[in-house]
Amino acid sequence: MIVAGVDVGGTNIEVGLVDEDNDVIARAKRNTPTKGPDAVMATIVDLVQSLDESPVAVGVGIPGVVHQGNVLTVPNLSKWNAQVDLGGVLEGMLEVPVALGNDVNVGLLGEWITGAAHGVDNVLGVWMGTGIGGAMVLDGRPFNGSRGAAGEIGHVMVQPGGALCGCSRRGCVEAYAGRRSMAATAAAMVDAGRQTSLFDIRNDEGKNTLTSKVWARALAEQDELATRIFGMAIEMLGIAIASVINVVDVELVVVGGGLAEKLGQDLADRLRIAATPGMLHPHPDLRWVPSALGDDAGVVGAASLARAAIIRA
Amino acid sequence: MIVAGVDVGGTNIEVGLVDEDNDVIARAKRNTPTKGPDAVMATIVDLVQSLDESPVAVGVGIPGVVHQGNVLTVPNLSKWNAQVDLGGVLEGMLEVPVALGNDVNVGLLGEWITGAAHGVDNVLGVWMGTGIGGAMVLDGRPFNGSRGAAGEIGHVMVQPGGALCGCSRRGCVEAYAGRRSMAATAAAMVDAGRQTSLFDIRNDEGKNTLTSKVWARALAEQDELATRIFGMAIEMLGIAIASVINVVDVELVVVGGGLAEKLGQDLADRLRIAATPGMLHPHPDLRWVPSALGDDAGVVGAASLARAAIIRA
Repeated sequence: MIVAGVDVGGTNIEVGLVDEDNDVIARAKRNTPTKGPDAVMATIVDLVQSLDESPVAVGVGIPGVVHQGNVLTVPNLSKWNAQVDLGGVLEGMLEVPVALGNDVNVGLLGEWITGAAHGVDNVLGVWMGTGIGGAMVLDGRPFNGSRGAAGEIGHVMVQPGGALCGCSRRGCVEAYAGRRSMAATAAAMVDAGRQTSLFDIRNDEGKNTLTSKVWARALAEQDELATRIFGMAIEMLGIAIASVINVVDVELVVVGGGLAEKLGQDLADRLRIAATPGMLHPHPDLRWVPSALGDDAGVVGAASLARAAIIRA
Repeated sequence: MIVAGVDVGGTNIEVGLVDEDNDVIARAKRNTPTKGPDAVMATIVDLVQSLDESPVAVGVGIPGVVHQGNVLTVPNLSKWNAQVDLGGVLEGMLEVPVALGNDVNVGLLGEWITGAAHGVDNVLGVWMGTGIGGAMVLDGRPFNGSRGAAGEIGHVMVQPGGALCGCSRRGCVEAYAGRRSMAATAAAMVDAGRQTSLFDIRNDEGKNTLTSKVWARALAEQDELATRIFGMAIEMLGIAIASVINVVDVELVVVGGGLAEKLGQDLADRLRIAATPGMLHPHPDLRWVPSALGDDAGVVGAASLARAAIIRA
């Protein structure tokens, strides 16, 4: 049975056909529309229908709080202000069962089913992208919380009264370690007369924003400002991860998202070193690894939600 | 079948006989010995044997990291430096099955089985005592972590580079909100010439330390310094709880420990007010309540571990 996994990101919507071995056998991708839920749903339908085969079910990972098929909030997509019955509407349009999940929960699910977290009972997933996402497997089961809002490690407060976060609070770790915040800091530093190659690399790469690839290049070239901003991001994220590990006592940390794809084990090691001083009783064999599926984690995880939806249907 | 629950605290060891309705039908109590594990175990045996009936199994809650019957670390008891097979040794001495758990995990277990958290699937327990302890029920099961070290909310960092904590790290919330830290702050302020009734109340109550009762009296009398120090404790603990709720998305917070016994719902409400600004997507019906079993929570929870040990044996 072939199912489809859909990974709705702030920049792109990616769709994959996934077979029973969890291999992605076909892909399609388009920019995420900025005109709100209807446009996002139309794009999902177009992408799924553009695939070579018709999936028997569809799973969707979305960057928001998802509970019982409803998308409660989507802070990082524009014009998405009200609660939307995304599952119900997509089922009507696609005429197959549709399952929903939070994008990072779904990404870690992919890693847990067939990637870096396969077979591990207690896992913390930390996704470094535009924002900072988190997800957990606890006692051998994906954990989503009482209403699907668990895992928001980006909004662990690491500095009371600190930097303003996109969520309007102050001192959240995302305000230091999210790519959007790092870019704003870099721009402010350039305004203040500091030098950096970050924006030249951005132009050279033909991008509009400081993507993970841009950061990776600037770090590889030892750009001083990029190194400084990224060092602070790692330090702050290490503090947040240590606090979370003190509460959930996992045996594996999987680092995913765009930056993990570019920096790999080096990023996982830097976070390990930053978090170690703050951990009280870490598991003696606590491991830190990058995502193994990379960009496919979300598609594979969403596809596994689709399979579960068939069983329920 | 009658079992015994043992609650090993930094100050007292309390033992209770618990019947099948989870009622405590007899109690015994003694000061916690300060000469290390052997003295603690001898006292537990004496107390259990002093009870009217012989329990068919014994459960013990201990203020440390407990994994598979071993006590890995006990930071708050003196002369307890090595790993101890407490379960095995006590079984040899008492000749009945013995089960072990972390004291706060066991306290929340008591509340979950028959108290304030009865029937709730996702619960955060926050215990305010000498230190700050935590415990969780997640997806309808007590959660102890990969090695029994979960729930250490006291060591969530709320102020990088902040106050020195008993764990030797800086900025842990326990360094602001634990009673030991609050007492040290009060003593330093008195040294610096500030006025407070805290130490007079302590003497009046015939205590050696600033107990929960001493703090409750000083707060009731609107002592300015006590109010100030306690206000900071609440503020910092609110920040830590908000961060943890952003990660675990529970529907109930149970506040326990000595201070909850004295201050009750008022303490739970103060923590709710302090935590609310830091919560991202809290459950719309998130409830905050004090422990319902009070001092008995640990004994009842430990007794339920004893029952589980009979089933396993």
